[in-house]
Amino acid sequence: MKQKTTALLAACAVLGAAGFGTAAFGDDAKPAATLQYSREGLMLRPEHYREWIYLTSGFDMSYSPAMSLGHVFDNVFVNPQAYAVFVATGRWPDDTALIIEIRSAESKGSINKSGNFQGAKVVGLEVHVKDTARFADGWAFFEFESAAPAKMIPRSEECYSCHAAHAAVDTTFVQFYPTLLPIAQKMGTIVPECK
Amino acid sequence: MKQKTTALLAACAVLGAAGFGTAAFGDDAKPAATLQYSREGLMLRPEHYREWIYLTSGFDMSYSPAMSLGHVFDNVFVNPQAYAVFVATGRWPDDTALIIEIRSAESKGSINKSGNFQGAKVVGLEVHVKDTARFADGWAFFEFESAAPAKMIPRSEECYSCHAAHAAVDTTFVQFYPTLLPIAQKMGTIVPECK
Repeated sequence: MKQKTTALLAACAVLGAAGFGTAAFGDDAKPAATLQYSREGLMLRPEHYREWIYLTSGFDMSYSPAMSLGHVFDNVFVNPQAYAVFVATGRWPDDTALIIEIRSAESKGSINKSGNFQGAKVVGLEVHVKDTARFADGWAFFEFESAAPAKMIPRSEECYSCHAAHAAVDTTFVQFYPTLLPIAQKMGTIVPECK
Repeated sequence: MKQKTTALLAACAVLGAAGFGTAAFGDDAKPAATLQYSREGLMLRPEHYREWIYLTSGFDMSYSPAMSLGHVFDNVFVNPQAYAVFVATGRWPDDTALIIEIRSAESKGSINKSGNFQGAKVVGLEVHVKDTARFADGWAFFEFESAAPAKMIPRSEECYSCHAAHAAVDTTFVQFYPTLLPIAQKMGTIVPECK
């Protein structure tokens, strides 16, 4: 439960996220255009998101000065098709999939003596997906605690209200994505009341 | 000069790196197979490395306990072709290109109250390239301080000796790349004396 809380809070602090299960390179270079769900509507855990487009990483990010989650990195990825549309328009298309991976931070190892590097342990994985045919409000969050498929996070959770109130573009925290922010600024797609 | 020192030290602390200038997606899905050089042998600054495969990020990494570089993230990318070969074999092919981007770390902004996120400013960019036809020892480092083409870092610099002495696979710091380390371990490609 602690892990769940950690990952959920970290996700709200950073992003909007969602996921596919396919590689971003190779003979069949284009990843599948849709996330995969079970017959019951559970999302299958994305497998190859590390081969998507990288957006940013944070270190111990929190929206509460008093919150202490231990040392973790968060890495954010987006599916290449959605990234290409955003670069061209400053907007997220349908089937946008953002993923936040929460990964353990280590300090001492090999030649590293101070600061932090990323460890082997993935302690959280969350998805923010835009699919207007599947979700009434367009976007939905999913959180994975194991290899098992995940239920959609209920709309009553603070992820939704936090992203709606504070995220720069279409409920996503583009203000934390350094290469996308100037594109949204240029295209004029930032929510005016975003702060 | 301070910026140069900062970036150089950070690169030695983290990686092996090199670069192309092409996108990792789109109709022409495969990035160019070679880096671009001027007639004089200077490397042109890679432009689209953020669309390559992400390997890891560090935060204030240093191989000296007393070293203080200020707060920076380092993000490491590799060209997709080399990544695919590494995943299959645990080894880097010719034309491997690793890039380390040193980016400013910010703390207060939007809803973030503690920890750090990545800012707009790229304060260092370095490349580690494997090109056995071009370089006598196979690999070479380049450092960019502006948009201008860069000279190869001389072999007398400590980057080379540090990578040779401590890097896990073929002079690259795979021990800091959490998704590649288990591949190298499985394939048995880690230098035995690596530490």
